[in-house]
Amino acid sequence: MSLTRIAVVGYGNIGHSAVEAVRAAPDMELAGIVRRSAAAVPSELAGVPIVTDVSALGKVDVALLCCPTRSVPDTAPEYLRRGIHTVDSFDIHGESLLALRKNLDAIGKQHNSVAVVSAGWDPGSDSLMRTLLLAMAPKGLTYTDFGPGMSMGHSVCAKSKPGVKDALSMTIPAGSGVHRRMVYVELEAGADFSAVEKAIKSDDYFIKDDTHVFAVESIDTLKDMGHGVRMTRKGVSGVTQNQRFEFRMTINNPALTAQVMTSCARAAAHHLKPGAYTVPEIAPMDLLPGDRDTLIKTLV
Amino acid sequence: MSLTRIAVVGYGNIGHSAVEAVRAAPDMELAGIVRRSAAAVPSELAGVPIVTDVSALGKVDVALLCCPTRSVPDTAPEYLRRGIHTVDSFDIHGESLLALRKNLDAIGKQHNSVAVVSAGWDPGSDSLMRTLLLAMAPKGLTYTDFGPGMSMGHSVCAKSKPGVKDALSMTIPAGSGVHRRMVYVELEAGADFSAVEKAIKSDDYFIKDDTHVFAVESIDTLKDMGHGVRMTRKGVSGVTQNQRFEFRMTINNPALTAQVMTSCARAAAHHLKPGAYTVPEIAPMDLLPGDRDTLIKTLV
Repeated sequence: MSLTRIAVVGYGNIGHSAVEAVRAAPDMELAGIVRRSAAAVPSELAGVPIVTDVSALGKVDVALLCCPTRSVPDTAPEYLRRGIHTVDSFDIHGESLLALRKNLDAIGKQHNSVAVVSAGWDPGSDSLMRTLLLAMAPKGLTYTDFGPGMSMGHSVCAKSKPGVKDALSMTIPAGSGVHRRMVYVELEAGADFSAVEKAIKSDDYFIKDDTHVFAVESIDTLKDMGHGVRMTRKGVSGVTQNQRFEFRMTINNPALTAQVMTSCARAAAHHLKPGAYTVPEIAPMDLLPGDRDTLIKTLV
Repeated sequence: MSLTRIAVVGYGNIGHSAVEAVRAAPDMELAGIVRRSAAAVPSELAGVPIVTDVSALGKVDVALLCCPTRSVPDTAPEYLRRGIHTVDSFDIHGESLLALRKNLDAIGKQHNSVAVVSAGWDPGSDSLMRTLLLAMAPKGLTYTDFGPGMSMGHSVCAKSKPGVKDALSMTIPAGSGVHRRMVYVELEAGADFSAVEKAIKSDDYFIKDDTHVFAVESIDTLKDMGHGVRMTRKGVSGVTQNQRFEFRMTINNPALTAQVMTSCARAAAHHLKPGAYTVPEIAPMDLLPGDRDTLIKTLV
């Protein structure tokens, strides 16, 4: 079977990890990187085509959209309309995700291409886990506890406050899906800490959580891409109560996001019919390379 | 949407739990029970048709095969050939499972019916978990530790030895996929314990494991349907090492087996094309009832 040709769109943390995951995949080939500017080439990309338009990369089967979440809804259609499958890690749960899936589903069906949406770890592999737990115990409660780890959304919010030069918001799990926010801020010269603290604590992002704000000398020394999840379900199978399930992971955040995206590219290229899918709508075995019978013997 | 009509084939522990799971499902209806003899009717089945041939139940969409594993290969084709989908919990991993899937796949495709094979928890939901973990971290090791809980296969083996009236083999997890076997035997009058012990320890079922045999007055007082699993994976996402995952559950064994089978019946009835599937070959969301958009909003 010929190698699946992958374009990585965007080269931030996730794009960087996506290049590594594609290079490690036995059945894939890195077609190149699509960036807004092709000028500066990081050393690890020596010899890799870096372009501003995917059409310069020749045949591309799947585009891994490693751009910011908010630009996914405009970026994905460009690729789908050219018949290139897309995988994104759009991370706004609920109506926004549903609207994205619906729009990309229509475009994909029209142009014979597949979009896998929200294919990171949450949404993504965690969503699959929540779905499986519901199939195993239809009644009961699932709690997803995140962290400890950096929240990108909360960090950006804190950084946007007047007087804040840089910020980092840690998500600390307090159990039962409740989280504490530990916010570290690097202040601009002359900034008033208590005004910054108040602005952060009263923002919608933080107002419902137990939020603690600290001034530090340097945000850079705090940055760590590690993250974690603990998911629990206590529920009922049939009429049997107290079935208990727990899933934990401690992971490098961009590395796992990029790996899930890369695995989903495989399903898009080989298994799914045109349209849009979230991760729990994909048969997990379609995420893996290799001979189906061997997979069944080894995994089932 | 009309209710999916389910026949439960066999009425042992799993059949009993299957009736409960079907009755608890909002989108299903218990068509009846198929047993070798329709004579004795347990009180909880009052009013439920109990038949020796499924054709006496009218329209049936899915048959849950709650018969012993070894009779699944002969039983499933009878249903598939009538256009009735089947779900079994065939529990012999490896070549036997692969051969069953292959045979039922051909029969299903010929008769427009779906077979979900090995749809318990291991093989079954654990298989799906192992598949997902491999998609998240393609390199590394997964260990599945079972127990503490009764192993049916090992108990039957111990019971088959001369001088043994009844037996129960507990699986005790020793980590890294290694297990201790604690075997309790109720001896027949005059039986020689050390001969029984030797026969058990030298059987292929036990010879590789750390096996301990004990004579007890009554096996019945030891029976508990609880079981457990701890699965761990430490692996690599892209080139990022030391990604760590852990899944644990403590469950009632027949209740979870029957619930997974019942959830798989939904995929067979509504989502899968004719042929045979193992659990990781099914999109997890196809296991759930309810509106797709609502599921995506809630779970993804």
